[in-house]
Amino acid sequence: MSGITGNLVVGQSGGPTAVINSSLVGVVTKALDAAEITNIYGARNGVEGVLREDFVDMRKQHPRELEDVGETVSAGLGSCRFKPKVEDCKNIFKIFEKHNVRYFVYIGGNDSALSAGIINKIARDSNYELRVFHCPKTIDNDLLVTDHCPGYGSAARFVAQSFMGNDLDNRALPGIKIDVVMGRNAGWLTAASALARINPGDGPHMICVPERSYTIKEFVTQVDKLYRANKRVLVAVSEGLADEDGNVWLQSEKIRAELQELNMLDVLNWIDAAGKLEDAAGGPKLDSFGHAQLSGTGMLADFLSAVVKIHLYREHNKKERVRADTLGYAQRSFAGVYSEVDLKEARMAGEAAINVALSGDLDGSICFQRHNSPHGNYVCDTFRANLEDVSGVNFPKGMKQYRPMEDRFITDDKFGVTDEYVEWAKPLIGKLPVKGMLQDIKVVS
Amino acid sequence: MSGITGNLVVGQSGGPTAVINSSLVGVVTKALDAAEITNIYGARNGVEGVLREDFVDMRKQHPRELEDVGETVSAGLGSCRFKPKVEDCKNIFKIFEKHNVRYFVYIGGNDSALSAGIINKIARDSNYELRVFHCPKTIDNDLLVTDHCPGYGSAARFVAQSFMGNDLDNRALPGIKIDVVMGRNAGWLTAASALARINPGDGPHMICVPERSYTIKEFVTQVDKLYRANKRVLVAVSEGLADEDGNVWLQSEKIRAELQELNMLDVLNWIDAAGKLEDAAGGPKLDSFGHAQLSGTGMLADFLSAVVKIHLYREHNKKERVRADTLGYAQRSFAGVYSEVDLKEARMAGEAAINVALSGDLDGSICFQRHNSPHGNYVCDTFRANLEDVSGVNFPKGMKQYRPMEDRFITDDKFGVTDEYVEWAKPLIGKLPVKGMLQDIKVVS
Repeated sequence: MSGITGNLVVGQSGGPTAVINSSLVGVVTKALDAAEITNIYGARNGVEGVLREDFVDMRKQHPRELEDVGETVSAGLGSCRFKPKVEDCKNIFKIFEKHNVRYFVYIGGNDSALSAGIINKIARDSNYELRVFHCPKTIDNDLLVTDHCPGYGSAARFVAQSFMGNDLDNRALPGIKIDVVMGRNAGWLTAASALARINPGDGPHMICVPERSYTIKEFVTQVDKLYRANKRVLVAVSEGLADEDGNVWLQSEKIRAELQELNMLDVLNWIDAAGKLEDAAGGPKLDSFGHAQLSGTGMLADFLSAVVKIHLYREHNKKERVRADTLGYAQRSFAGVYSEVDLKEARMAGEAAINVALSGDLDGSICFQRHNSPHGNYVCDTFRANLEDVSGVNFPKGMKQYRPMEDRFITDDKFGVTDEYVEWAKPLIGKLPVKGMLQDIKVVS
Repeated sequence: MSGITGNLVVGQSGGPTAVINSSLVGVVTKALDAAEITNIYGARNGVEGVLREDFVDMRKQHPRELEDVGETVSAGLGSCRFKPKVEDCKNIFKIFEKHNVRYFVYIGGNDSALSAGIINKIARDSNYELRVFHCPKTIDNDLLVTDHCPGYGSAARFVAQSFMGNDLDNRALPGIKIDVVMGRNAGWLTAASALARINPGDGPHMICVPERSYTIKEFVTQVDKLYRANKRVLVAVSEGLADEDGNVWLQSEKIRAELQELNMLDVLNWIDAAGKLEDAAGGPKLDSFGHAQLSGTGMLADFLSAVVKIHLYREHNKKERVRADTLGYAQRSFAGVYSEVDLKEARMAGEAAINVALSGDLDGSICFQRHNSPHGNYVCDTFRANLEDVSGVNFPKGMKQYRPMEDRFITDDKFGVTDEYVEWAKPLIGKLPVKGMLQDIKVVS
């Protein structure tokens, strides 16, 4: 036994997922068994709760209730989008010292890893022995080092089931359907739409990811080409759809210039009018990490729908059936759709955080690695990475803290994902629902 | 045996649902057993396929495949939004005569019932013995006569699971969340959001249905009131949200006038700019039944988000966290979420259509009725209604062909649904996913 004796604080941070509570329960159940861990403090709303000293007693939770929480979507302790500043961290330590906190597990994505990294750095600089562990969680799947992230498999499953249904819907009532998928920096979740394909001809027929850049002309031309060929098109677009400078479309000067060039001035006026809406409500929405807020509006979907409609109307002098949906928050918090593998792995990550924290004076981020099984089955386990390699806390300027999709996963024409991606992702989402199709046998009378 | 001998045509029409294929399989399997029915023609894309003589041979489908189709979302035969004119119906009869079609089952909602009604009327006027049956299907649940409609239970389940997740999400990251739910004329599907409530304090905290009218001021005042009281609000709004004249908000002169009165001119400009987008793409979108197209854009959600944000900013001089989602097509065609009861009843409806059609020279619409079981269990079976009572084909001018929610299901303050509605709806959606909550026990140190 090489663990220091003291209390544990566990918190959840960032966007909820279907399985982040499974990690929480993994942390708590392992901690309950550990002689070194005295009290188990659940911080309400992540580090915000630490600063408020708002702690839930996790030891006093009923075991059966706790297991139910583990199978419940969203973040049971509450979450936050708060990045502690140096001053906040000093206050966090005062509180940790006061409560003899020696273990801190922070469950979250990139921003949460960074928060944990900062806290860890200050702890080490202060010679306060604190075992800080980042437990990975993000539907965006864009954490560094790990093979994949808890939360991704379930969100990917939701996206795949959405596209499976949307494709069948689009077969029944043909037209152009565009679905906007979450994922600001990376296309992992948008790529998961490809998992919906079972039979030849199944959509999505076109996938646009933030790892590539697109012009309006390229986008509408591709839709038009597919529509002429198949009489229907299902399109998956990342909310991070970007121009060649990496700026997202709705905030891109290049896209504005192109709208002018294409004489789509009505669309330009509409974007400007939408921008003024923001002003009227106190200015553009930025979260506290300085991100422009892309989720939570349907603007990109409506924008894409408009440019496609206008293009097709001009080309064919005909109003085509174009619809667009923004898959929305359901991607991260729909109750009742999750991947079994994801749920299990999220728990493993939580358990591993405690196991490793007890093993010595280490910090870390829990990561997943796959193994080649002799029979080709999916086999995966956890390992510890240095917190600084994931949190990016010491990264040189300009080095990205998130992981984009590998080139091998994106098709050369940039409008699709490769079979290699599909094979990679399949084990993470589990078996999809039944999809029966009628045989196209004509009646002979 | 009192059935006439001949062929059967079965078709699907209107928006897809999770269980319309179950009705199709019910029709086909019963027809396979009927000596009177020779060929079974599956019309591609409803009456459009009849006119094109585009028929799938349903006898030659593999039984196992057919059962899989029955469990697959959307409309396996393809659907349509086409309302046959008298000339079209004459052509349909020529085709029916040519193929000796004596049974016609049309699976769909209000518009499909009307189509079936028109065809039936012409058949009777022509003394052509044709047994026309409407098999009910609509996620909107707004068909006349029947207790409820196949498709509703599954869509209601999707909505309930969405709201359950959204409520947990909103608990974790508090703010104002607005979700726009399908249902142009009636609030049945929006009301289903209430089924997501399990514990005290659970959302949705506010529900707006097309059966009542709302002003912007009423809407934002209610949100503000709830937000002050609870620090978070989850709102369910029907896409059919209407002013006191029954006009939907985005097409309402009253709402435009109110925006001016409230000095929300930026919102007015944005709506106008959106209207011009439509013009640029060939004019406002109307489907072939003359409905303005409400589904398939995120405009209402963004509108509501904007007026709430502006109101709160003015009242509190603070940017509040407001998000809005449009639940979108997933409500009618998400693969893998369905209600067991709904799936079973959809099949029952299809089977009943054939059973009754074989029983004599009748037309009809298949309806559901509930029975009082001695132990309070949900017990339901089918009965035949006259087609004209459902299709509205002979209704006097001004009489509505759809069923709004009963007054007893809407709260007096018009911002909610009653417990009576919840009790009524519960058996239709089945058991919801686990929802575990942490006990709010503070650490005592």
